Amino acid sequence: MSNEHLATTQEQISRRQVLAGAGTLAAGAALGQVGGIINPALAAGSSTEKWPWPYKKLDPAKTAELCYTEWYRVFCGAVINSVFIQLRELVGEPYISFPCDGFAYFEGGQMGWGTICGAPAGANLVANLIIGPRVNGGSLAGHQIATEMMEWYAQTKLPVYVPKKPKITKKLPTTVSSSPLCHISVGRWMKAANKPLNSPERQDRCARLAASTAYRLVELLNAWQDNRYKTDFDFDCIKQYGITGQFNCADCHSRGVPTAPKEKTKV
Amino acid sequence: MSNEHLATTQEQISRRQVLAGAGTLAAGAALGQVGGIINPALAAGSSTEKWPWPYKKLDPAKTAELCYTEWYRVFCGAVINSVFIQLRELVGEPYISFPCDGFAYFEGGQMGWGTICGAPAGANLVANLIIGPRVNGGSLAGHQIATEMMEWYAQTKLPVYVPKKPKITKKLPTTVSSSPLCHISVGRWMKAANKPLNSPERQDRCARLAASTAYRLVELLNAWQDNRYKTDFDFDCIKQYGITGQFNCADCHSRGVPTAPKEKTKV
Repeated sequence: MSNEHLATTQEQISRRQVLAGAGTLAAGAALGQVGGIINPALAAGSSTEKWPWPYKKLDPAKTAELCYTEWYRVFCGAVINSVFIQLRELVGEPYISFPCDGFAYFEGGQMGWGTICGAPAGANLVANLIIGPRVNGGSLAGHQIATEMMEWYAQTKLPVYVPKKPKITKKLPTTVSSSPLCHISVGRWMKAANKPLNSPERQDRCARLAASTAYRLVELLNAWQDNRYKTDFDFDCIKQYGITGQFNCADCHSRGVPTAPKEKTKV
Repeated sequence: MSNEHLATTQEQISRRQVLAGAGTLAAGAALGQVGGIINPALAAGSSTEKWPWPYKKLDPAKTAELCYTEWYRVFCGAVINSVFIQLRELVGEPYISFPCDGFAYFEGGQMGWGTICGAPAGANLVANLIIGPRVNGGSLAGHQIATEMMEWYAQTKLPVYVPKKPKITKKLPTTVSSSPLCHISVGRWMKAANKPLNSPERQDRCARLAASTAYRLVELLNAWQDNRYKTDFDFDCIKQYGITGQFNCADCHSRGVPTAPKEKTKV
């Protein structure tokens, strides 16, 4: 992804510098305005903000099974639980301190608003927290894996994973969402299945969808751990269309696609 | 919000039960399949999964200033940093252990995909992690504050907060996004401002947007801390339309709004 829309490197001042008062004049001025945050030991970074977090390879199928079970407790945020709960046992910290259950609000595209589906949202969180952010001296791999998970989610007939003992024993339809948004993903599946949102079939579809996502995520994380992770996937809607988004513009813009204001000069 | 789309209470088995082997037969069977996760002390819940987290009231303007500064380092995920960094100093744990900087991937609606804007995404995280999830015996207030933040974000002319020493000194346009999605929010602002995504003005708009969101979030959290938080806002797209989403269907469905499969019986 292009970084053009983001702050320039010069502007990416370190928080340690800002909070310890060792930053630029601008940063120092900002500190003065904020005030009170002057204890770098407490405020200027946590031990959990050192990346990458230690990772041990997980079994994709076991992870998917755990995710399926956890979905019925914390919904699609279960992707997080399925990976981090195992790593609490296999690794310990920082996974023990991470409040997995707090992410139950990922349900329904965040509290039922239909925005990003909790399954890719959880995968994004896991990949970026294990590998670390791409900015401030970080690695690009977490960003890349998360981006690839979004594309995989949007382009794959889902759910692909069938749990060993599913709550719904009959075969469920699979659909391509063409989007990482809950509203679109679940809507397309409901249309294909002719099942309402509150049906046990739709619930089990979402549990399997989360499990499928956890399975794929662990495959990529395992490859990264083995130094085998490579991607040719270059997601850059910004470069092509001048705005954040997906590439299937007409899916929503059925009456014509607006044009973003053009850049005059690179900044 | 209706809970109809979610798992029934009977299905919401406790993870402690599952992992300690004291759950239902189905849960026990699931445990057998997953295997290996049998140390409840490590796996069955973290000390950070006890809610609510201790909270001390913050100054909304100070929080907004810190958020504005932090945006130029970690982008719209700075809403998290602006609240939790202060609480690291004022409260200590569990804020010290929380990896705020890892959420820089909220940029551009998650790695540039244009899904949920990182400002409300950060507010959702903060409200739900401080107050706790609504499921599994939790409180509804975090869910409600997050939902109210999404509505506020979608309906308010933003950015409303002007930092004390802005990087861009000229007045910036304000726009109503009518959506919590980055793509729509930033697109509407870019159209009104006639500024490209990579312009310093657009960057400062997003920094101020995050700061505005942090300001409003802290107002609501302070009210909650004082037992003054009440809401009449009843967000329930699911009840009205049978699917997760917003209420402004025609904004995307300009050629007609599909109907969700109807529920036959309550489950």
